[in-house]
Amino acid sequence: MRNPLTPDVLADPVALTRVLVDIESVSLNEKAIADCVEEVLRGVPHLTTQRYGNTVMARTDLGRSQRVVLAGHLDTVPHNNNFPSSMRGDLMYGCGTSDMKSGVAYALHLAVTLPEPRYDVTYFFYEAEEIESRYNGLFLVAGAHPEWLTADFAVLLEPTYGVVEAGCQGTMRAMVATTGVRAHSARSWHGVNAIHGAGEVLRRLNEYQARRVVIDGCEYREGLNAVRIHGGVAGNVVPDRCEIEVNYRFAPDRTEEEAHAHVREVFAGFEVTVTDSAAGAAPGLDAPPAREFLAAVGAAPIGKLGWTDVARFAAMGVPALNFGPGDPNLAHHPDEHVEINKIRDGAATLHRWLA
Amino acid sequence: MRNPLTPDVLADPVALTRVLVDIESVSLNEKAIADCVEEVLRGVPHLTTQRYGNTVMARTDLGRSQRVVLAGHLDTVPHNNNFPSSMRGDLMYGCGTSDMKSGVAYALHLAVTLPEPRYDVTYFFYEAEEIESRYNGLFLVAGAHPEWLTADFAVLLEPTYGVVEAGCQGTMRAMVATTGVRAHSARSWHGVNAIHGAGEVLRRLNEYQARRVVIDGCEYREGLNAVRIHGGVAGNVVPDRCEIEVNYRFAPDRTEEEAHAHVREVFAGFEVTVTDSAAGAAPGLDAPPAREFLAAVGAAPIGKLGWTDVARFAAMGVPALNFGPGDPNLAHHPDEHVEINKIRDGAATLHRWLA
Repeated sequence: MRNPLTPDVLADPVALTRVLVDIESVSLNEKAIADCVEEVLRGVPHLTTQRYGNTVMARTDLGRSQRVVLAGHLDTVPHNNNFPSSMRGDLMYGCGTSDMKSGVAYALHLAVTLPEPRYDVTYFFYEAEEIESRYNGLFLVAGAHPEWLTADFAVLLEPTYGVVEAGCQGTMRAMVATTGVRAHSARSWHGVNAIHGAGEVLRRLNEYQARRVVIDGCEYREGLNAVRIHGGVAGNVVPDRCEIEVNYRFAPDRTEEEAHAHVREVFAGFEVTVTDSAAGAAPGLDAPPAREFLAAVGAAPIGKLGWTDVARFAAMGVPALNFGPGDPNLAHHPDEHVEINKIRDGAATLHRWLA
Repeated sequence: MRNPLTPDVLADPVALTRVLVDIESVSLNEKAIADCVEEVLRGVPHLTTQRYGNTVMARTDLGRSQRVVLAGHLDTVPHNNNFPSSMRGDLMYGCGTSDMKSGVAYALHLAVTLPEPRYDVTYFFYEAEEIESRYNGLFLVAGAHPEWLTADFAVLLEPTYGVVEAGCQGTMRAMVATTGVRAHSARSWHGVNAIHGAGEVLRRLNEYQARRVVIDGCEYREGLNAVRIHGGVAGNVVPDRCEIEVNYRFAPDRTEEEAHAHVREVFAGFEVTVTDSAAGAAPGLDAPPAREFLAAVGAAPIGKLGWTDVARFAAMGVPALNFGPGDPNLAHHPDEHVEINKIRDGAATLHRWLA
């Protein structure tokens, strides 16, 4: 394949977004796009480029006192009748326009066009963010080459619709089980119906008051939801077990352990098994490059509600935030699109900050 | 195979039960037992014998003014480390001892040993009662040879622990669905959680007061139970649909249509879809052979709570009741067994009635 990432394309974040969208890169199929990105970066004299799997890293080494990371994932969710891209007025439609080829375009554009940024910069393009963690390029490089990610601050170019979303909430799942006594449903009073028993679990969920927590001026809004329920033995049997999977999204002032304890307390009296858990990340807006980034944006940050790879940077001691032109509500949506003006505005902001 | 149903065995309902239990006849595998039964019956001069599939019918034609049916199914549920039979004191253990080879033994014993019963008798041994209706021998013969089942009264020899269980309750299932609005669970307030919405369905089930209805002196105790619940999209999605399958067991003073309307009323405001339904059967204790049967038993009948093939007889205009030595609570149980005294007592009752 001839590399479509030509100098003209690389010079314009909008054109670059479109070309990146049109290189198919559904998770686990990132080789073609990683090849194109790697080839471009290796041709840039002020960068040192490395590759691990289908993850590509390029960095300046100008001896600046601070180093920042600009990071974006190369993969997309599966197409949904939204490939290749198309334009409708000032909107670019297609899988990955919002999540997050427009963000990737920022990093690639700056990598090529900014030979002397005010901080040393690590540009990080990684594979498999949309699927299980064990494939995630950021996770893999954090294990194999953690030195590639050493920095004072990171911007993850995930869709935020042009605002700064700082830190991220933690997430955990637990299975809450009710038990009963099995019986033939023709003589149901001999049994104890575990599905009926789940009524109390749902009552507590319906009455639950989720917290809103403000940290460094960012509000984190929690949520506790049943995401799955399952029970039943047969059409003529009073069931003796019902399982309700709950997902708790918690503000970063709570540790994972505190979140687990809270869920156990909410469902006291029931069997509660934690099945999945990931810590949140505090906003971390104190680092000098972070403060200067916020000044360049010129608007107050808000709390990131979803769990993102910001938490992986936080776990490595690198304060991170999310900033991208896409609308997060359109991510994974058949109508996914991005506004051209948002791309241009964000590119200008990053340039203002780094140039 | 040499036929184990020898004259000595046929003369004793207890020995006969044991031999019938030890002929393996899990549903859809009734050929061997039907062959044995058919061979015996064809050798009895006072009977006319017919076969349809693995269902065998034999009848007297003595010109009596009344005809009764004695009916039992030849199949069992799958074995559960309880085959072949074994004796422990006065208890016979094994798959089918209670449900219902001991009942089948009554009919076969009387068919062979009672040349001049006081009514004409139709002995009916049928296949595949324990599985889907479309395989059921009584259902199949009711369609193909309804004249085989013409009678004034029927005794179904299902396990009742030696009491008369009259008529049967109806049963219906319905899917009650709650709907909501899907959203990412990190921003759950953008959605409406359908599982949480199911809390109201479970609240109504928990508060439901089931009726107790007395008909002809028989009490029918109703029940309304969730037998299955299912909801959920993914671990990070507020679900937009939850389905609760409910099973309503209703007294035979309600028609199927009335039962459906009742369930719709209980779950007013929710989507309710009836998925399965079978009418009950009124006790039907007015027919002369029924009254004489009750006199021979000498104890008051009770209402049958489970749905049984009694309802198939009722639908053909034949009043029917359940009477057998097995304990219905042991049916389909690994510890299934029958009391020897119960077999002898019931056999004596039937003999008193028919001789």
